[in-house]
Amino acid sequence: MAGFFITIEGIDGSGKSTQARLLRDKLVEIGHDVILTREPGGSKGAEEIRSLLLQGNTDRWSAETEILLFTAARRDHVERLIEPALIADQTVICDRFVDSTRIYQGYAHHNLRKLVDKLHNLMIFRNPDLTILIDIDPTIGLKRSFARSNHETRFENLGTAKQSIMRNNFLKLANDFPDRFVVFDGERDFGIIAKDIFSYVTKFNATQTTAKTHNG
Amino acid sequence: MAGFFITIEGIDGSGKSTQARLLRDKLVEIGHDVILTREPGGSKGAEEIRSLLLQGNTDRWSAETEILLFTAARRDHVERLIEPALIADQTVICDRFVDSTRIYQGYAHHNLRKLVDKLHNLMIFRNPDLTILIDIDPTIGLKRSFARSNHETRFENLGTAKQSIMRNNFLKLANDFPDRFVVFDGERDFGIIAKDIFSYVTKFNATQTTAKTHNG
Repeated sequence: MAGFFITIEGIDGSGKSTQARLLRDKLVEIGHDVILTREPGGSKGAEEIRSLLLQGNTDRWSAETEILLFTAARRDHVERLIEPALIADQTVICDRFVDSTRIYQGYAHHNLRKLVDKLHNLMIFRNPDLTILIDIDPTIGLKRSFARSNHETRFENLGTAKQSIMRNNFLKLANDFPDRFVVFDGERDFGIIAKDIFSYVTKFNATQTTAKTHNG
Repeated sequence: MAGFFITIEGIDGSGKSTQARLLRDKLVEIGHDVILTREPGGSKGAEEIRSLLLQGNTDRWSAETEILLFTAARRDHVERLIEPALIADQTVICDRFVDSTRIYQGYAHHNLRKLVDKLHNLMIFRNPDLTILIDIDPTIGLKRSFARSNHETRFENLGTAKQSIMRNNFLKLANDFPDRFVVFDGERDFGIIAKDIFSYVTKFNATQTTAKTHNG
């Protein structure tokens, strides 16, 4: 699976981090060289920016400053971890990427979606080959995310109404980028979801590799 | 002196921070309400980003990530300190602003000047009413900046050759923005320079105020 970039997206409690790990394990089992990473963070510098983003009061940053910090963290992550891994023909699985910024900063505050896009096109360029969206009813997602707890609380406790809007915006985004998005029903048993995702990813990659061979 | 935004620029050791303080003191003496601030930093959030920017190894960030972090810090500083002060009819004196980013990140690495401009136009908008450039021979500047020492060392010790390029780029920048730039010879006695600056600022502001009154 040469130089393949997969992102996993979804609202809090959708189970995406679990699915990211399961997918990594399954791909490693069949012999692939996989890097599992996450955003915000993923590289040394980006993890330091992550602390600025996820700790402190909700109003610590304006939406615009927040978008700049996410973009700075992503630039570092892409430059120092993702691009080198892809060049070395590794598969990169990233738990959240620019689509989360589109949803949580772009839609949630003051409709800044266009600004997120402009900064992405100016500073990042790199898009995922495949984006897995784990779709889930926010009431189920919230129950799951309350079961965890840590000090990175700035974006938590959005409430069911807001989570519902985020869920719908993720589904809209999947329609905006149909070539790379695939949606999985996240309310089923996690083992069954993992099987579905693995099956889809291996088929998708086979098609991509064939296409690359035919074109190259 | 209503809502007046002054920035002070120059290479390390040019004496700009001293001149910024002296100008603040003189303006306060004649009854103005002055805020003296600096970049990177100036607001609570921006000061936290400052630590990421000024501490650590030289290669801690790429030039592009650095520009994003400077822009994030500036966005916070402008939103939370500069704009509210200007709206409240205060005079803001800022030690370094976007022109330093144009010089140190825009020219120094990979010719990223256009990128600095694009991000400024997209995220900051605010330009100074007046920019005071303290021009100095780098050999004199270096002697002065070696006399100080602290832990914010990422951008220090550029060496005379590089400082010479920075000096010339600052002078070019003054030509790019003739309406707001004024250059002072920084090799003279600091008291004389301070007098010159104060005299220029009060005259410039009187013209501005008259223009505003005529237009408004």
